[in-house]
Amino acid sequence: MQTPWDHRYAQRTQHMKSSAIRELLKLTESTDVISFAGGLPAPEVFPVEEFKVACAYVLDHFGAQALQYGSTDGYTPLREMLAQYSNRLGINVDTSNILITSGSQQALDLLGMVFINPGDRIVVESPTYLGALQAWNAYGAEYVTVPCDGEGMVVDKLEEALRTGPKFIYVLPNFQNPTGVTLSLERRKQLVKLADRYGVPIVEDDPYGQLRYEGENISSIELLDANSHEQDGHFTGNVIYLSSFSKILSPGLRLAWMIAPTEVISKLITAKQGADLHTATFNQIVAHVICKDGFLDRHILHIQEDYRVRRDAMLESLEEQMPEGVTWTHPHGGLFLWAKVPHQINTLDLFESAVKEKVAFVPGEQFFAANPETNSMRLNFSCCMPDVINEGVSRLGRLIKQELVRK
Amino acid sequence: MQTPWDHRYAQRTQHMKSSAIRELLKLTESTDVISFAGGLPAPEVFPVEEFKVACAYVLDHFGAQALQYGSTDGYTPLREMLAQYSNRLGINVDTSNILITSGSQQALDLLGMVFINPGDRIVVESPTYLGALQAWNAYGAEYVTVPCDGEGMVVDKLEEALRTGPKFIYVLPNFQNPTGVTLSLERRKQLVKLADRYGVPIVEDDPYGQLRYEGENISSIELLDANSHEQDGHFTGNVIYLSSFSKILSPGLRLAWMIAPTEVISKLITAKQGADLHTATFNQIVAHVICKDGFLDRHILHIQEDYRVRRDAMLESLEEQMPEGVTWTHPHGGLFLWAKVPHQINTLDLFESAVKEKVAFVPGEQFFAANPETNSMRLNFSCCMPDVINEGVSRLGRLIKQELVRK
Repeated sequence: MQTPWDHRYAQRTQHMKSSAIRELLKLTESTDVISFAGGLPAPEVFPVEEFKVACAYVLDHFGAQALQYGSTDGYTPLREMLAQYSNRLGINVDTSNILITSGSQQALDLLGMVFINPGDRIVVESPTYLGALQAWNAYGAEYVTVPCDGEGMVVDKLEEALRTGPKFIYVLPNFQNPTGVTLSLERRKQLVKLADRYGVPIVEDDPYGQLRYEGENISSIELLDANSHEQDGHFTGNVIYLSSFSKILSPGLRLAWMIAPTEVISKLITAKQGADLHTATFNQIVAHVICKDGFLDRHILHIQEDYRVRRDAMLESLEEQMPEGVTWTHPHGGLFLWAKVPHQINTLDLFESAVKEKVAFVPGEQFFAANPETNSMRLNFSCCMPDVINEGVSRLGRLIKQELVRK
Repeated sequence: MQTPWDHRYAQRTQHMKSSAIRELLKLTESTDVISFAGGLPAPEVFPVEEFKVACAYVLDHFGAQALQYGSTDGYTPLREMLAQYSNRLGINVDTSNILITSGSQQALDLLGMVFINPGDRIVVESPTYLGALQAWNAYGAEYVTVPCDGEGMVVDKLEEALRTGPKFIYVLPNFQNPTGVTLSLERRKQLVKLADRYGVPIVEDDPYGQLRYEGENISSIELLDANSHEQDGHFTGNVIYLSSFSKILSPGLRLAWMIAPTEVISKLITAKQGADLHTATFNQIVAHVICKDGFLDRHILHIQEDYRVRRDAMLESLEEQMPEGVTWTHPHGGLFLWAKVPHQINTLDLFESAVKEKVAFVPGEQFFAANPETNSMRLNFSCCMPDVINEGVSRLGRLIKQELVRK
């Protein structure tokens, strides 16, 4: 249909690409496909009963407030809870440092709106989280990439990137999406030092940090930054920290939060007013009621147990089923691992054959801001039961073996 | 606190202004202030019991889906319901024409993201909805204003505005925010004709259309456009239509929808992926469950009855309490009316004295993209009980009389 809108799109739409993942995922929606492609939490861990009780309680006691407009910064008791939570992790912040967002995706969008001029450079890991690239492409961001290895961003290569005068550094230190890799303590300290030397601030994106199945927690970059300034946990503001309820409670609520200097929060609030006025009041009050009395800590233990088994199932299946030449990461937490097949196989082609064999993954190409690898893939282990994981990995192993014979 | 973020704000933040209304409203939050300032639905009409039943039902039957990630375009049964609803009003659309947004504010933001280049002109009514200006300022929009009178936009003055080559025309035809005025049928037809002649598309923003307390419904601009092209109700795509659940169900859910050509919807979906991934799944399913079997029609009748009484109370109080020289509109629906005091009174000054007297309104200045009036004010009548309305108007009348004596 021809309409007068056709030739009226803004220039920025040329940089806005629909996620190829989402197009691919449509192919995998039929129920008989074993999908390692999504980034979905396991529906089995959703606390449905707690939600039922909380919804009824909220409607009985806060009905008029929960269904009404709310303030742009968020529901105050929820922000207080998150400030306390953050203080428990060692960073001293108050509610003026906390903004509730409609999922972490909105936090990324608001950062783009408030900080990114067309042509601004952002330092990103290679590979990095696709949703950040999607959000910032709309603001005309350009990217300077730093490679990753088994300990996360190769910080030795960061200095070169910082010399290009970037706006900020974007890093996912814990169980990164897509690689599942964790930035080592040594590298975190080095990152903080370099960022400080070049006066470049950091965005620390941490949606998975709570979901550790192995090893010890590592201090957040935010806290290391505070300590390196002898601030003894007092928020320096050099690091903006993002986290989310999506992986620890429910993504269907669209609830996340960001921690930033008060001044930055007030700019972000202005941006959010124009973007969606505020995050759903009902959802914020329900989340607060569910989480406020320690439920979240208990629930996270339960998720950890469940996901650890799934991760182990995937690691074991890969060990058993994959031919020589295939390698993968060993994530200590989170939802994903990252596998590489021999160079002669292109995982975009492999994806097509895989869907025919009723198994799916995300081809790695999607996650690179520049110089995409053609032989990697992201595998999600949180959303399938262990026996289904075994079956899926075995299908995938067969396919890769066939491809290796053919090439 | 000095941080490295301070000198890093994007240029667009210079055009992003926090709504002065929101700052003013903070002054009115104490419970003993009678506030005509907000745009809040009456909490008394929220269907709290229906929400309780629906939340329990959704968690029992769709728990895993409702708490999970959803698709960017929205929950399909809800989109189907909205397509049928639209068809009932005369416009033939299908789900590919419908996008669920996180409130109408997000629809405005997405329109800005997809259509507005810095410097683009948008035709707006004078005064117009503040939230649209807020959303589009961030994209560098400029405005061409067309005055309003008791029948809405003075379409005779539109042609001049269209000669400036605007991107689109933005119009709130029913019970406009802030004036409460409705665009007459004759003018709607004239608007469609002129837009067509100049090849300029229209954004029709209609959050209040269902809330009519007097007179007959008038065809939407979208439908008149279809009929003027002898399309017999078949969507032409010249008009993008926005509406919302905020005023007819609950604003705390942040649920709205837009109707646009399929091609435009797909661009908007790409923008929404980057902006917030999708609107809360739980809220969409709950809204669908509540509304699907005709509840909304019955509920709207109930809201209409309630708000009609409140509107009448305000109109009668104004008649009784206001000194000569004060005028106001007579809205046939919606949430607001627009009053003008004699020119020697500045309503921004009046606001300060009013808050001291424990009554609040929004000074009219806020709502003008250019050449603000200094002697007008927006009064909301949906959120206070009739006797409270009487008391508030009487305080306001006293104040205005005092000011007139002083000047």
